[in-house]
Amino acid sequence: MSNLKVEVCLTPLLYVNYRNDNSIVVVIDILRATTAICTAFEYGVKEMIPVASEEEAYEYKRKGFLVGGERNGEQLEGLDFGNSPYHYMGDHIKGKTVVLTTTNGTQAIEQCKDAYKVIIGAFTNLTALCDFLKNEGKDVILLCSGWKNKFNLEDSLFAGAVVDELANDERFTEFADSSLAARYLFQVAKDDAYKFLRNSSHRKRLAKLNLKEDIKYSLSFDKSSIIPILKDGKLVAL
Amino acid sequence: MSNLKVEVCLTPLLYVNYRNDNSIVVVIDILRATTAICTAFEYGVKEMIPVASEEEAYEYKRKGFLVGGERNGEQLEGLDFGNSPYHYMGDHIKGKTVVLTTTNGTQAIEQCKDAYKVIIGAFTNLTALCDFLKNEGKDVILLCSGWKNKFNLEDSLFAGAVVDELANDERFTEFADSSLAARYLFQVAKDDAYKFLRNSSHRKRLAKLNLKEDIKYSLSFDKSSIIPILKDGKLVAL
Repeated sequence: MSNLKVEVCLTPLLYVNYRNDNSIVVVIDILRATTAICTAFEYGVKEMIPVASEEEAYEYKRKGFLVGGERNGEQLEGLDFGNSPYHYMGDHIKGKTVVLTTTNGTQAIEQCKDAYKVIIGAFTNLTALCDFLKNEGKDVILLCSGWKNKFNLEDSLFAGAVVDELANDERFTEFADSSLAARYLFQVAKDDAYKFLRNSSHRKRLAKLNLKEDIKYSLSFDKSSIIPILKDGKLVAL
Repeated sequence: MSNLKVEVCLTPLLYVNYRNDNSIVVVIDILRATTAICTAFEYGVKEMIPVASEEEAYEYKRKGFLVGGERNGEQLEGLDFGNSPYHYMGDHIKGKTVVLTTTNGTQAIEQCKDAYKVIIGAFTNLTALCDFLKNEGKDVILLCSGWKNKFNLEDSLFAGAVVDELANDERFTEFADSSLAARYLFQVAKDDAYKFLRNSSHRKRLAKLNLKEDIKYSLSFDKSSIIPILKDGKLVAL
């Protein structure tokens, strides 16, 4: 009988308190980096290279790579894509390598890149992700990207969805307070996450950018069964 | 018409993201530092000196001060009190100066000591605290002490209680995602906070120390109308 631990790390800055050599880390940036990444893999991207800085992104662009980049919700000038999931739907990325930098999500990946395993989570691959975590049977850290190292609702909501599912597996017994809180939020929100997020500060930010469709897509369940995983600095399909 | 902001900072490590020159900071460590501090003022303590390190606490003890000290839930050896609210009930502290160091609460005070105003919150002074915040009409940062820079349920629950009350005042309009989340938790928990905390990791930790009475007291509302405030490094009654 295992006593597996499930912890939610609410922003990347707190990861230093959770870091260990044995846990699987799930990186979460629902609006919109990790949703975009899962979408890209569903549409056949070969690999994605997450980079933390704009400079690195432009350097890859100069070398001829396809590059996505976003800061503060808007696409970086001169790059091929932003972080809308819709930018990664279609044949144009099939079999390609795509580089990505975003305000929060790729920073979170940078924080945890040395973990035992780093995988990418979104509502769009929720069931596949939870099945994987159950099969692995390891401790889990759900790393929310948040917004500039502040807590955000949508990432913790997704973390709560994972907790809610893992709690059905009796091997997962140790839930941090952050995990319990995230699960409560998910239970309050699950019937209408879009409505739940109506008042969130991030959604207000994104509403200005006219991203209603992105948000609706990002809150839809199980569009993909692919789990992106970090291998040697690149995301590949598991 | 003001647009006052209410943000919940979920652990002291994140305070750097919230710090500003105009907000009132409410320090929260429900189990048990800020509850103990509010209790001490209700029982007539003259002033309390919060110190972050054990060394400082023992130095004050050598100088003849009354000193309370706790680490990991247990009273530090050779000091006068731990951080149980019950240690601060009675005439023995009336009119006295008491020094205090705790695992989380006094660390949080250390983090925000340069803020515009720093006050101490607990369920036991909730109504008085909210009335004060409404009268002041300033932005509010609710600083949860957490547990060793991890999120804890009881502090965010209290933060949620304050948010829930301030939301009734139409001048408070800007609620961070952390504030919305804390409010949801409070709304789920408010009818029986003790039951809600049944599964929390911190309560399990404290349960080992047989602190059921402390926890029940710490979750009781409005035992005091005194608000401790930090002035020149010392807590005094407002």
